[in-house]
Amino acid sequence: MMTETEDKTLRYRRAQSVTRAEEITEKEKKVRSSQLDKPIHKPRDSLFSWSSEFANFTGLVNWGFLMLTVGGVRLCLENFLKYGFRVNPIEWIIVLTGYNEGHSHQYPSVVLLIFSIVPTVVALMIEKGIAVNLINEKLGVFLQITNILFIITLPAVVLQIKGNHFSFIGATTVCMIYLILFLKIWSYSQTNYWCRNGTKNRFSKNKLRRQSLSAPNWKTYEEEKNEEAAAAGLIKYPNNLTLKDLFYFLLAPTLCYELNFPRTARIRKRFVVKRLVELAFGVNLVLALFQQWMIPSVTNSVDTFSTMDPIRITERLLKLAVPNHLIWLCLFYLSFHSFLNLMGELLQFADRNFYNDWWNANNISVFWSTWNTPVHLWAVRHVYVPITERGYTKGFASIIVFLISAFFHEYLVSVPLQMFRIWAFLGMMAQPPLSVISRIAERRLGPRWGNIMVWSSLILGQPLAIMMYYHDYALLHFTSE
Amino acid sequence: MMTETEDKTLRYRRAQSVTRAEEITEKEKKVRSSQLDKPIHKPRDSLFSWSSEFANFTGLVNWGFLMLTVGGVRLCLENFLKYGFRVNPIEWIIVLTGYNEGHSHQYPSVVLLIFSIVPTVVALMIEKGIAVNLINEKLGVFLQITNILFIITLPAVVLQIKGNHFSFIGATTVCMIYLILFLKIWSYSQTNYWCRNGTKNRFSKNKLRRQSLSAPNWKTYEEEKNEEAAAAGLIKYPNNLTLKDLFYFLLAPTLCYELNFPRTARIRKRFVVKRLVELAFGVNLVLALFQQWMIPSVTNSVDTFSTMDPIRITERLLKLAVPNHLIWLCLFYLSFHSFLNLMGELLQFADRNFYNDWWNANNISVFWSTWNTPVHLWAVRHVYVPITERGYTKGFASIIVFLISAFFHEYLVSVPLQMFRIWAFLGMMAQPPLSVISRIAERRLGPRWGNIMVWSSLILGQPLAIMMYYHDYALLHFTSE
Repeated sequence: MMTETEDKTLRYRRAQSVTRAEEITEKEKKVRSSQLDKPIHKPRDSLFSWSSEFANFTGLVNWGFLMLTVGGVRLCLENFLKYGFRVNPIEWIIVLTGYNEGHSHQYPSVVLLIFSIVPTVVALMIEKGIAVNLINEKLGVFLQITNILFIITLPAVVLQIKGNHFSFIGATTVCMIYLILFLKIWSYSQTNYWCRNGTKNRFSKNKLRRQSLSAPNWKTYEEEKNEEAAAAGLIKYPNNLTLKDLFYFLLAPTLCYELNFPRTARIRKRFVVKRLVELAFGVNLVLALFQQWMIPSVTNSVDTFSTMDPIRITERLLKLAVPNHLIWLCLFYLSFHSFLNLMGELLQFADRNFYNDWWNANNISVFWSTWNTPVHLWAVRHVYVPITERGYTKGFASIIVFLISAFFHEYLVSVPLQMFRIWAFLGMMAQPPLSVISRIAERRLGPRWGNIMVWSSLILGQPLAIMMYYHDYALLHFTSE
Repeated sequence: MMTETEDKTLRYRRAQSVTRAEEITEKEKKVRSSQLDKPIHKPRDSLFSWSSEFANFTGLVNWGFLMLTVGGVRLCLENFLKYGFRVNPIEWIIVLTGYNEGHSHQYPSVVLLIFSIVPTVVALMIEKGIAVNLINEKLGVFLQITNILFIITLPAVVLQIKGNHFSFIGATTVCMIYLILFLKIWSYSQTNYWCRNGTKNRFSKNKLRRQSLSAPNWKTYEEEKNEEAAAAGLIKYPNNLTLKDLFYFLLAPTLCYELNFPRTARIRKRFVVKRLVELAFGVNLVLALFQQWMIPSVTNSVDTFSTMDPIRITERLLKLAVPNHLIWLCLFYLSFHSFLNLMGELLQFADRNFYNDWWNANNISVFWSTWNTPVHLWAVRHVYVPITERGYTKGFASIIVFLISAFFHEYLVSVPLQMFRIWAFLGMMAQPPLSVISRIAERRLGPRWGNIMVWSSLILGQPLAIMMYYHDYALLHFTSE
C-alpha cells in the first residue's frame, strides 16, 4: 500500500516537490466530498514551506515602517521625559552670532564674509587684464592661481590667529563660503582660459579639417560661429568679463562657470513661497533636533569613548546614528532642494540638477557622484577631465578627485574647530576601498545589498567621525580647565 | 523679450508644467554646445519637484529596514547595559514546573493533563452507545453537551480551589489543552451527529430528487455510495468510533473532525529535523526575549500606569510594544509553522493549512480569518454555518462567533491569573467595530492603509491588554503584602 501510493506520487510530481504524497486521486476526491462528515481538509503545504512557493510579503513593508514609527515616537517621548524641553531659540542666536562670548560688538565672521568681495574683484581684474593684453597669459595664470590660493588660506590663517573671536557656526560659515568662492573662481578663470586658448586651438585644429572638406568656406568659420551665437543672443568672450556677470555666477546655484547659463522665463511666486516656507520650517526642525536630541547624545558619549569599552561605544554610536542621520537628511533636503531651488528661481537659473537619486545608489561611487551634483560636476569638468586629457589614466584622475574632496572635508571640519585631526580626511579616503567592497557586494549579492552598504556607511560613518572629533575637542577644551 | 519667450513656452508645454520656460530651442542648443566654455547646464527640474515626475524611491525600503536594524541592535545593547544578562534557564524550569514554590513534589498541572483522558474516553463511550442504540439520540446529545461543558469548567474550578498549587505556566498550559480538547470533542460529537442524521436527511432528500431523474436506480443510492467509499478505502460511520481514530484526531493538527483525513505517504526525516531545530532554537529565543526585555519593561510600567500620566503611559506602552510584538511573531511561527507542521509530519497528516497570509490582510476581519486557520475553520464549520443553516442572518452568526472567541480569549487569561477582569473580552469585542473602521480605511485610503491599521492594532493592542492585566495583577499581589 505504502509503495503503491509512493509510486503514484513519483509519477505525478516532479522530483523536487515529492515532499507531499497525493494519494487521493480525482475520483477519490469526489467520493470524499460526497461523505456526510462534511470534510474540509485537503493535502496542502504551509505557506512558509519552500514547497508552497508562496512569496507575497508586501504587508511586511508596512510592518517595517510601522515599527520604525513606533520606535521613533517612543524615542521622542523618552527623550522629552529624560531631558525635558531643551529647544531654546535664544541660545541659538547666541551660538550663531557668538553674541555674549565677551566680544559682543565684534562680528569677525561678517567682516570676513564682506571681505570676500576683494579677491572676487581681483579675479575679474586679472581676467580683464589678460583679455586686453595688459598682462601676458603666463603671468595672468600665475596671478589667478595665487588669488585662488589666497582665498582658501585666508580663513585658515585668520581663524588660527583670532580663533577665539569667532563663534563655531560663524567660523564654519566663513570656511564654507570661502571654499565655494575658491571652487567658483577656479571654474571662472579656467573657463575663461578655455575661451581664450580654445579659440586658437579649435580654430587651428578645425582649419585643417575644414580645409580638406570644403576649401572655399574655411576662412569664414569663426565669423560664421560668431554670427550664429549673436543670432541666438549668446554672449561671447571677452564680453562676459563684467562685474554683473561674475556676481550672477557667484550667486547662481552652480560651481561651474559658463558664459550663457540656461535661464527661465519668469519667477514663479508660488514656488518661491513654498521654498521659503520649507526653509523656515526645516531650519527650525533641524535646530530643535540638534538641541533636543543630538547634543545630549554627543555629550553623554564622551566619557564612554574614553573608557574604550567596545559594547558601550557601539551603543552610543548607534544612539547617535539616528538623530545624526535624520538631521543630515533634513539638511540635505534644505540645502539641495529648498535653498538651491530658491536661489535658482530668484536668479531665473534654469538648471536645477542639484542632486540625483542617490537613495537608490547600489554602490558607493554612484552615491558620491549623485548626492551632490554641483560638486560632482565641478570635479569632473575642472579636475577629472583636464587630468585625463593630459594623458593620465582614469584611475589616477579619480584618486586626485578623492584626495581634493578629502582635503576639503577635512578643511571644513578642522579649520572651524581649530583642531587638526585627520578623521574626516581618513573617512573620505576610506571611500574608494569601500566603493570596491560595495561593488563586489552589488555583483555577488545583488543590487539590494549594494544599496544597503551605501546606507550603512552613511548612517554609521558620520556619527563615528562626529564622535571622534567631539571626543578630541572635549579632551582639549573641557579637561584642561 | 519676456513676453516673447513666455509665448513660446506656452506653445510648447502643457498648462500644468509651464513652470519652466524653455527659451532655448533646438537650434540654440546646438549653437550653445559648440561654444568654447564647455557648457554643461541645461534646463531641468530637481527630482523632488512635482514637475520632474520622478518616483523611484525603492532605496528607501532598504533605508527603512536598516534604520530598524540599527534601532534594534541599539535597544539590545542598551538593554544589556541597563539590566545585565538576565537569561537564566534554571529560573525557567522553576517557573514552568512551579518546582520550588513550596509544593515541590506535587505537579497538579501534570495530574490534570493526564486526567484529560477521562472525558475523552467518556465522549467515545457516549458515541458508541448512541451508535449501537444503547442510548437514544436525545439523551446522547444531552450527555455529550454535559461532557463538553465538564471539560471546559474543570480547569476553572480546580484552579479556583487549588490555584496556589499551580505555576502560572502550568495553569496556562492546562487551560489551553482543555480548551483545545473542548473544541475537538465538540467537533467530534457534532460530526458523528451529522453522519447519523445526515444519512437519513440526505437519503430522504435525495430520494425525491433521484426518483424524478432515474426511477429504477433510486433504491440503491446509499448502497452505491457505500460501495464507492469502500472502493476508495474510506471509513464509514460507525466504523470510525474507535479509540485509535479518536486519539489520532486529538493529536492531529486540526480542530475539525472528519472520518477520513488526507494522509501523506511517508514521514520526511529532514523536514522533521528542521522543525525540531526551529522549535529548540525558537523556544530559547522567546524565553530569552521574555526574561531580558519583556519582564523589565512590564515591571517598570506598573508605577507609571498608576500615575495616569498619559505621556509616560504612552512611552511605556510603545516600549513594551516592540518586545511583545517580536515575541508574538516568534510564537506565531513556532506554534503555527514549526509545531503544527511537526505534528502533521509525524502523524502523516496532509493538510498543513495552519495559517494564511495574514501579514497582507487589508482589514481586521481578513486578519481574524487568516492568522489562525484551525480555529477559523472550526468556527465556520461548527458555529457559523450551523447557525445560518437554521435561518439566522450572517451578521448574527458572526457576532456569535466573535462572542465565543472573546469568551475563550478571556478564559485563557483570567483562569490562569485567577483574576476576572474583562480586558481580553473587551479587546476581542472591539474587533468588529475596528473591522468596520479598517474596512472604511481600506476603501477610502487604499489597501495599504487598511494593512497598516491591522498591524497597528496588533502591535499596540496587545501590549495595552498586557499592561492592564499586569497592573491589576501587581496591585492585587504585591501591594497587599
